[in-house]
Amino acid sequence: MTSPIESLQQELPDLDWITDPLKIGRLSQDFSWFSPVLKRQLLGKRGDIVVKPRTEEEVRQVASACARHRIPLTLRGSGTGNYGQSTPLHGGVILDMSGYNQFLWSRPGVGRAQAGIRLAEFDNASRPMGWELRCIPSTFRSASLGGLFSGGFGGAGSINYGPIGAAGNILGIRAMSVEADPQVVELRGPEALLLHHLWGTNGIVLEVEMALAPAHPWLEMIVTFGDADRALDFGNALAHAPGIVKKNIALLVDPVPAYMTSLAEHLPKGCHAALVLVAEFSEAAALQVVAAHGGQVTYRRTAVEAKAGHHTLIEYCWNHTTLNALKVDKGLTYLQTTFTPGKHLDQVRRIRELFGDEVLMHVEFLRSMDGFTTCTSLPLVRFTTEERLNEIIQIFRDNGIRVNNPHTFIIEEGKVGGDLPQNVIDMKKRFDPAGLLNPGKMRAWGLPG
Amino acid sequence: MTSPIESLQQELPDLDWITDPLKIGRLSQDFSWFSPVLKRQLLGKRGDIVVKPRTEEEVRQVASACARHRIPLTLRGSGTGNYGQSTPLHGGVILDMSGYNQFLWSRPGVGRAQAGIRLAEFDNASRPMGWELRCIPSTFRSASLGGLFSGGFGGAGSINYGPIGAAGNILGIRAMSVEADPQVVELRGPEALLLHHLWGTNGIVLEVEMALAPAHPWLEMIVTFGDADRALDFGNALAHAPGIVKKNIALLVDPVPAYMTSLAEHLPKGCHAALVLVAEFSEAAALQVVAAHGGQVTYRRTAVEAKAGHHTLIEYCWNHTTLNALKVDKGLTYLQTTFTPGKHLDQVRRIRELFGDEVLMHVEFLRSMDGFTTCTSLPLVRFTTEERLNEIIQIFRDNGIRVNNPHTFIIEEGKVGGDLPQNVIDMKKRFDPAGLLNPGKMRAWGLPG
Repeated sequence: MTSPIESLQQELPDLDWITDPLKIGRLSQDFSWFSPVLKRQLLGKRGDIVVKPRTEEEVRQVASACARHRIPLTLRGSGTGNYGQSTPLHGGVILDMSGYNQFLWSRPGVGRAQAGIRLAEFDNASRPMGWELRCIPSTFRSASLGGLFSGGFGGAGSINYGPIGAAGNILGIRAMSVEADPQVVELRGPEALLLHHLWGTNGIVLEVEMALAPAHPWLEMIVTFGDADRALDFGNALAHAPGIVKKNIALLVDPVPAYMTSLAEHLPKGCHAALVLVAEFSEAAALQVVAAHGGQVTYRRTAVEAKAGHHTLIEYCWNHTTLNALKVDKGLTYLQTTFTPGKHLDQVRRIRELFGDEVLMHVEFLRSMDGFTTCTSLPLVRFTTEERLNEIIQIFRDNGIRVNNPHTFIIEEGKVGGDLPQNVIDMKKRFDPAGLLNPGKMRAWGLPG
Repeated sequence: MTSPIESLQQELPDLDWITDPLKIGRLSQDFSWFSPVLKRQLLGKRGDIVVKPRTEEEVRQVASACARHRIPLTLRGSGTGNYGQSTPLHGGVILDMSGYNQFLWSRPGVGRAQAGIRLAEFDNASRPMGWELRCIPSTFRSASLGGLFSGGFGGAGSINYGPIGAAGNILGIRAMSVEADPQVVELRGPEALLLHHLWGTNGIVLEVEMALAPAHPWLEMIVTFGDADRALDFGNALAHAPGIVKKNIALLVDPVPAYMTSLAEHLPKGCHAALVLVAEFSEAAALQVVAAHGGQVTYRRTAVEAKAGHHTLIEYCWNHTTLNALKVDKGLTYLQTTFTPGKHLDQVRRIRELFGDEVLMHVEFLRSMDGFTTCTSLPLVRFTTEERLNEIIQIFRDNGIRVNNPHTFIIEEGKVGGDLPQNVIDMKKRFDPAGLLNPGKMRAWGLPG
């Protein structure tokens, strides 16, 4: 008897199918191995087949066929996510969007591309016009736009624009439903956000239109400090300074800098290090803040130098800090935490007191969804047991710190931190009435019938 | 016997002297008539002669001659200040810088010009390269760059960059001392700020180098509300929204809109009106905030339309609100007040309760020197007596609100609100050892010997 997957292939012979089990295995994974919990839970989970559409029509054919054959369909960008969001729990088809990657157009402040475009390629296309993406994760070289939309939070640039989900950052998407006769619609602003950060469960995202930021010449600096409190105050002062134009301020508290082995020559032993991107025209003012806090600039690259060297400090920030540390010490994992604006420095200090060497502080300054300048942290955690990890999470929460648990593949247990709003569930009904998209990830929906 | 002024003219016959008493009288005034106190105090105060230098060499000749003849020297840009800062208290020479007005150069994020350039001309020169001044007062059409530096605070754009005195906004100045042999030096960053907002008492500012902002296409909107609290919450939400790019948010609480007679058709009777400039690419997100607060858009002009109509809402904001109201009601005056970030909305509401119809609220949202989003107010005050005006100021202060008293020509009693720091006084000694610049304005210095 022909399996549903075989029927699919026979029905759509001209599509770019991937059937090599090794390749399917690789394309079933993302960076969820940062979490020992997800690593265990997702072990062996994989798709049955991968398809790489080149056109919207090919996406439509796959969506229609999956709907008719009731085959689970899991979307994948570049697989840089950390929540197992592109790992299918119930097999089926992996829709690899990386070949659907054209930059479509840009005008002042706005650009639009197909979902599979890599963020670096997007910026390459828009920068000649003077614009770049507002917020990029440290994985921007390989991460896709659809992936950023569907599983991303923000990153470098969030110090200006907050999370990508803040009103005005995501302008619109073109989305397709999973039905025998797929519907394709343009969703604008708040409607588009009903598909955001839902791990591809709420519709197939074909195109994304983003508000852009002026592409300034970004100066990259490492500033080191002997005292953690002064380093923290420095980051906070620079983050707040209204006349200093910046793109990222990360703070790696000792011993985190020691894990950044390829920057070792710029990181004196025992230092606390701020990794900073400011506009070149703001350098003098930024150096005033450095001096006022007793910092030492140990590394400086102009925008031209950084580009020529194919090297950016952004790839030591956000979850690349975690990645670099895990390369050195497999016993580490991490958390995602959000501090309370105004109390954020005290909360960081409190966490350091409470955990000592078990939780290593890596702070990223940013603006909150409400526009307050604050910081978030992706602390490194010396992993012992899942019980202790949960205990640590609870202690953070007991101290008024929000934890977006990255050790779960259930949407509601991660960033959402509770039930999904009804309008999100309504959108699910509209775009995936049979519950075929990435089944098992949305608790509110359960498994495909 | 030849008077010192006559000697000056004879010594420098090729300069552009203005001796017509009517013209001298006009060039001795600014917009200090907004204040009934200053109007009384400055009545009859005037220079003896005006000179309009065309070159740095001509400025040098005037400075040298004034030093040798011990003649007071008062600088003037376009006379749009409000503190009588270009009105000489002790006669002497008025140095009218309006003819020294060349745009010098710009590169990404930075522009430099001679002090007498009008702000609108500066922007005309830099906008083709994609840049504009970060913060402009409502008087930008006529106000000069040197005047902004020497007597300005900020304005449209301060919602992004804070006051112009925040680190990174003013990059450098070229300044001349008043000595027989005048020194000319370049002062950078914090050193330049030792001449900022000192009403031309601390040196002759020849050139100013400013950090610039990306010149976005600014959409202009009036949004009206039936309820003052909702209007206030709207302004605050829009000010904070990190993904919405904006240039100005002013809120005119009823009955202030009624004074904006040339906007009458867009201002329903009894409304509270927000005057808003947002980037065109942020319009959809801004309209979400409008809808969430029950606002009505009664006026909308694209950047192209505003430019074509030679009309901008900026000229109804900041101290143009005051100007427009004073045109209608001569019995009004105003204050300059700064609220405490985080408590600012409550403070605005408290003031409304305390004063009713005596103090009419006009709020401008901005970022503070420390980078917090907050608001300032230029409330209109129904003037009765100077005693009552001082009482009102005291009540503001008793409620934790900072008042930058605009009813004084003494530097220390205005924005500074106390003694000048020693480094400012040191700079005075360096650039004006004989105390000839605008004598009588700096309490710490006294009158020329």
